[in-house]
Amino acid sequence: MKIRGNGIVAQSGGPTAVINNSVCGVIQAWEEQGNAGRLYGAMHGIKGVLEEKFINLSAQSRDIVEGLRHTPGAALGSCRYRLQEEDYLKLLRIFQKENIRYFFYIGGNDSMDTANKVNRLALQEQYELYVIGIPKTVDNDLPFTDHCPGYGSAAKFLATTVMETSIDLKGLLMSKSVTIMEVMGRNAGWLAASTTLARRSDDDGPHLIYLPEVPFKRERFLADVETVYREMGHVYIVASEGLVDENGEYIFAAKSRDSFGHCMLGGLAETLKTMVEREVGIKVRCNIPGTVQRAAAHCASAVDAAEAYMTGTEAVRMAARGCSGIMVTLVRDGGEDYRCLPGSVELGRVANIEKKIPLDWINSAGNGVREQFIHYVRPLIQGEVSFPTRDGLPHFVYLEALRQRPLVGETR
Amino acid sequence: MKIRGNGIVAQSGGPTAVINNSVCGVIQAWEEQGNAGRLYGAMHGIKGVLEEKFINLSAQSRDIVEGLRHTPGAALGSCRYRLQEEDYLKLLRIFQKENIRYFFYIGGNDSMDTANKVNRLALQEQYELYVIGIPKTVDNDLPFTDHCPGYGSAAKFLATTVMETSIDLKGLLMSKSVTIMEVMGRNAGWLAASTTLARRSDDDGPHLIYLPEVPFKRERFLADVETVYREMGHVYIVASEGLVDENGEYIFAAKSRDSFGHCMLGGLAETLKTMVEREVGIKVRCNIPGTVQRAAAHCASAVDAAEAYMTGTEAVRMAARGCSGIMVTLVRDGGEDYRCLPGSVELGRVANIEKKIPLDWINSAGNGVREQFIHYVRPLIQGEVSFPTRDGLPHFVYLEALRQRPLVGETR
Repeated sequence: MKIRGNGIVAQSGGPTAVINNSVCGVIQAWEEQGNAGRLYGAMHGIKGVLEEKFINLSAQSRDIVEGLRHTPGAALGSCRYRLQEEDYLKLLRIFQKENIRYFFYIGGNDSMDTANKVNRLALQEQYELYVIGIPKTVDNDLPFTDHCPGYGSAAKFLATTVMETSIDLKGLLMSKSVTIMEVMGRNAGWLAASTTLARRSDDDGPHLIYLPEVPFKRERFLADVETVYREMGHVYIVASEGLVDENGEYIFAAKSRDSFGHCMLGGLAETLKTMVEREVGIKVRCNIPGTVQRAAAHCASAVDAAEAYMTGTEAVRMAARGCSGIMVTLVRDGGEDYRCLPGSVELGRVANIEKKIPLDWINSAGNGVREQFIHYVRPLIQGEVSFPTRDGLPHFVYLEALRQRPLVGETR
Repeated sequence: MKIRGNGIVAQSGGPTAVINNSVCGVIQAWEEQGNAGRLYGAMHGIKGVLEEKFINLSAQSRDIVEGLRHTPGAALGSCRYRLQEEDYLKLLRIFQKENIRYFFYIGGNDSMDTANKVNRLALQEQYELYVIGIPKTVDNDLPFTDHCPGYGSAAKFLATTVMETSIDLKGLLMSKSVTIMEVMGRNAGWLAASTTLARRSDDDGPHLIYLPEVPFKRERFLADVETVYREMGHVYIVASEGLVDENGEYIFAAKSRDSFGHCMLGGLAETLKTMVEREVGIKVRCNIPGTVQRAAAHCASAVDAAEAYMTGTEAVRMAARGCSGIMVTLVRDGGEDYRCLPGSVELGRVANIEKKIPLDWINSAGNGVREQFIHYVRPLIQGEVSFPTRDGLPHFVYLEALRQRPLVGETR
């Protein structure tokens, strides 16, 4: 079956180092279909559709399209926007006017919810539209897929830098003997847990890993730090930004005043630092890479980049076969060597569910992970992505129509 | 002239991504001297000398020595220790006992002060000792050398990640429209300034760079942020951790309470974030890479790594020629193509002086740098360092005697 009519691809949510691989996959698979309609990129996700801000992806140069494979960030622009009731009619009219028959939406949980709504709208209005979700999130919290494109590269970067900074810490004979690395992950600890790959001997960091899956206990934490410090002379801690206490309250928000009535502003790392410095009396240094971890294309995983690309090509092929209302998934082959094959799941089953680390993959002390997790994550960070450089820095590409500045009014 | 007697090499201060290149250079040049005495590594700098914690570097395997060229951190261990009067006699006795005739000290300002004291002690006591300082600091603040080994690699990593996170920021259409990257540099802005290399078009970040060389003015800063935000719709700010106000007080310390009497804990980025969110009303996200920036061997500059190695080999050659009491320097050749040749300067002239960015390399608004700075820094980040990997991560080496854990008592 051939593609008939035009298509839209768009990106939503926080970008990753490899999200543009999926766009590239969609563009190249679309071209492969032959005699196909036009493929548009909607700028800034579903908002760009509603505002009819399209660029013609079929008209982009081959070099730019290929360059997407090593360019981080959302090349089409991203958004966080929840579709409103009043948007539906507008959306349908735009699809009709432009003869849009294919809608590819690259994103995480919220984006799959949006794609699901678009699909239901089309069904309800009997408008022929093929809607395919393409998974993307460094948080790795989408259900029904072995893992999410974007995760492996962020994990590789974090494990690499934890390895490097753990060596840095080990060499010191100074006052700052505790390093706390605050890692992304509001409700699931996949990224924090991945840093365990940096450990190659007992004294390598991270020595302690705290995950949102395990309620954080202050006394337990302080005891852990003291134990490692006595044994090693230094402590490397990795913590998910989204740690919660037994009542489910975020640690960094809950502890806005300590036992002395002092204010404790700042994020999680700063909160833990203050605890350790006041209660254990050891100096702490915080590393908070922030968006660096999700944008680190210079340290992307080849496996991750290839899978991000594959989910894009598969989305087009599935749509061409007449599928709709599904998200492409990665299905791990059970064989000796790691391999993931494409699969699919209904959008309605994915939307708004967060996949957490299975509790039996976490150690009994709640401060590290077990072998099952390592077996799961190790294949995802394999291989390097080569990229062209210019003057000693990566040479990234921009889609032609997006070279201009975004309109200021929209970003407020 | 041949090397006669034994030698010590040691590392001090904060590590860098390429500091072990200098150790490798010392080891390999020492071997080249032929019929030479033994080369010891003192563990944890001058403290290791005083505690007679030596390892025999001549006995290390070739693979480990060569592996130092891509391994970050201080492979010999580092320290921050100011020599006391009572240490001098002890030091001299240890040198005599072990027949130490060469002392190579790799470090920054304080380390050069230590090396200078050791040299003066030997002269005073008429003990034949050749003392050579080898420059190292990501801060790039040593005088009399064009730049310092370690700086180029940290600059390359920071420029790369600012480029990546600036693309990440540009793609967003969300609430967090300001990114603040806090960069190392307590008194000199060389690292913060280097991120200007990430700019390849007008809308690329960083849009605003704040350096310790320019007194920070709150009102001016807020006006800068508003101006860029109105023009671009987003703002990428890079700030040195050591920003000071007109009275020379650190911004992050001085502003412990804001105009509302609220506590403002945390470092510089958190302080600036609070200012922008309260006064301009735009959401801010902070990236604080911390030790990640100085340990990022996976993104080291080939030029920097080669120069770090060269300062090590030159130190041995200068000592073999009978020089003492000097630090190896890098002297930029004035030619069309970038090249640095080795030079030297007396240790006494280097110690305790910090080199700052020339004020005429900073723009008149005090929020960015001029072409002269770019011309200076660009050659220092060129080229990549290849490194072996294992299971998707770098394969770093450890010197044989340092595989054990450090003694806990010492690190408190």
